[in-house]
Amino acid sequence: MDEAIPANFFEEVQTVRFQHCDPAGIVFYPRYYEMLNLTVERFFESHIGWSFHQLHMDLHVTVPTVRIETDFFEASWLEDRLQFQLRLDRIGRSSLTFNISCRCGDEERLKAIITLVCIDFTKKKAVPWPDRIRSRIEAILANAVTVPA
Amino acid sequence: MDEAIPANFFEEVQTVRFQHCDPAGIVFYPRYYEMLNLTVERFFESHIGWSFHQLHMDLHVTVPTVRIETDFFEASWLEDRLQFQLRLDRIGRSSLTFNISCRCGDEERLKAIITLVCIDFTKKKAVPWPDRIRSRIEAILANAVTVPA
Amino acid sequence: MDEAIPANFFEEVQTVRFQHCDPAGIVFYPRYYEMLNLTVERFFESHIGWSFHQLHMDLHVTVPTVRIETDFFEASWLEDRLQFQLRLDRIGRSSLTFNISCRCGDEERLKAIITLVCIDFTKKKAVPWPDRIRSRIEAILANAVTVPA
Amino acid sequence: MDEAIPANFFEEVQTVRFQHCDPAGIVFYPRYYEMLNLTVERFFESHIGWSFHQLHMDLHVTVPTVRIETDFFEASWLEDRLQFQLRLDRIGRSSLTFNISCRCGDEERLKAIITLVCIDFTKKKAVPWPDRIRSRIEAILANAVTVPA
Repeated sequence: MDEAIPANFFEEVQTVRFQHCDPAGIVFYPRYYEMLNLTVERFFESHIGWSFHQLHMDLHVTVPTVRIETDFFEASWLEDRLQFQLRLDRIGRSSLTFNISCRCGDEERLKAIITLVCIDFTKKKAVPWPDRIRSRIEAILANAVTVPA
Repeated sequence: MDEAIPANFFEEVQTVRFQHCDPAGIVFYPRYYEMLNLTVERFFESHIGWSFHQLHMDLHVTVPTVRIETDFFEASWLEDRLQFQLRLDRIGRSSLTFNISCRCGDEERLKAIITLVCIDFTKKKAVPWPDRIRSRIEAILANAVTVPA
Repeated sequence: MDEAIPANFFEEVQTVRFQHCDPAGIVFYPRYYEMLNLTVERFFESHIGWSFHQLHMDLHVTVPTVRIETDFFEASWLEDRLQFQLRLDRIGRSSLTFNISCRCGDEERLKAIITLVCIDFTKKKAVPWPDRIRSRIEAILANAVTVPA
Repeated sequence: MDEAIPANFFEEVQTVRFQHCDPAGIVFYPRYYEMLNLTVERFFESHIGWSFHQLHMDLHVTVPTVRIETDFFEASWLEDRLQFQLRLDRIGRSSLTFNISCRCGDEERLKAIITLVCIDFTKKKAVPWPDRIRSRIEAILANAVTVPA
């Protein structure tokens, strides 16, 4: 009976603020993408051990998003406490795929499948993940339990 | 030889501004969703004949997005002139589906498939499109030529 | 020798994220206003005891900003840990004035003097602060030590 | 009787969009700063003849804002057509000061006094305006009529 949180799992809590809401009083959907991006940013810092700033400065790479699929199930309201539950799913030669479910209490608000790639600043094209990043990600995935979609 | 632009087609040009760009000098992807939303907003005004404000005030409905699938093919840079080419694809009981391709010159920068739904402000749930909106959308689709995906 | 933090003082820490930065790699100044607004939002919750949402729902007022004076002294960079130090300065019939200094370590990054007013949702005009808000603010100011500008 | 528009005057029209509005249905004030910045950006392109991108690429300078004073007189609503009327007021060794009045019809919505400075990318400090920029700005100001504050 292992209740440990798998290594490929991460939760980031974000509160809905005035700046996120539209005239209907609910989160304007482009603002969710700032929250999703911040969740990925925080995962890199806490689990992979490299912040976006360190990726830029030390490894000269940036990790833009190349594909997102998002389903918005329920609206979110001012001051809702949103739990962004990220699961790292797959590493490719230069890509990485995440599944993020955003919940508020028992309700799932949205689900996103995000793929990003590793781009070299100088070459301005996709490159294989630097070894130090790849080995860290593979360790995370090796330790991961299988979570049903 | 009909060269007319089909009724379900709309183009909105938006220039990449300082406010859209990130430290890598390219458009930060959440900003694209503001641009995509504006494209849909402008289509409602120019083709359907109801602005978002009029939908709220006169028909008491709002049209949140419930699903988006986006592929980002190439980065966009400061002052790029982006053509957002929208194609209205399908109407459901209370939904509407668009396909938007964003191009800069010969290059496709991103592609999005967007579904939105008609929500009643008071009931706070999905309702069938008001007749005046539905008849207008059906007229647009009837006039449309078939465009391959 | 009273080292207690005066009641009219509040600090909110915010980290500079990718979403705040421009192509020069520094915070794009309009993003600072989201951070300043969030600082005021958080002060209302923690010190006045009413969140913006509760102001809307329970008291039918909103508190828009009517004047800001801002000096930007130094640039902020990705992942800087910014301390927004708010000082509540003055209450008027329907106004409230704050002084916010944003620091990173020993460096002052910016300073803002913000005035907001209490607007009634229905009347759509400035109204005197509701008694429950006014008495709370006056208690905070009465307890406050004098802080030199 | 000279009715010509003075050279130091520029107007940029921007429509209030869904993305600018808050739960009170009015423009969220941080969004005004994106509009103000865009007005300055457009003035540089059309009157000074250098876009922000060209300033970066060709002259290796950036022009961050160092001071803004803003008075918000009236709220703006979804789909309002806002006229941002910019007046270039003064050039310093490395600074530039603008006065921008935002109007909707007969109503003044806000007024901002903005000072920006010329920063060298490499030195990361304020530098005198490059000659080509200074001579252009001085020509604009020489031609300017006096406009009362």
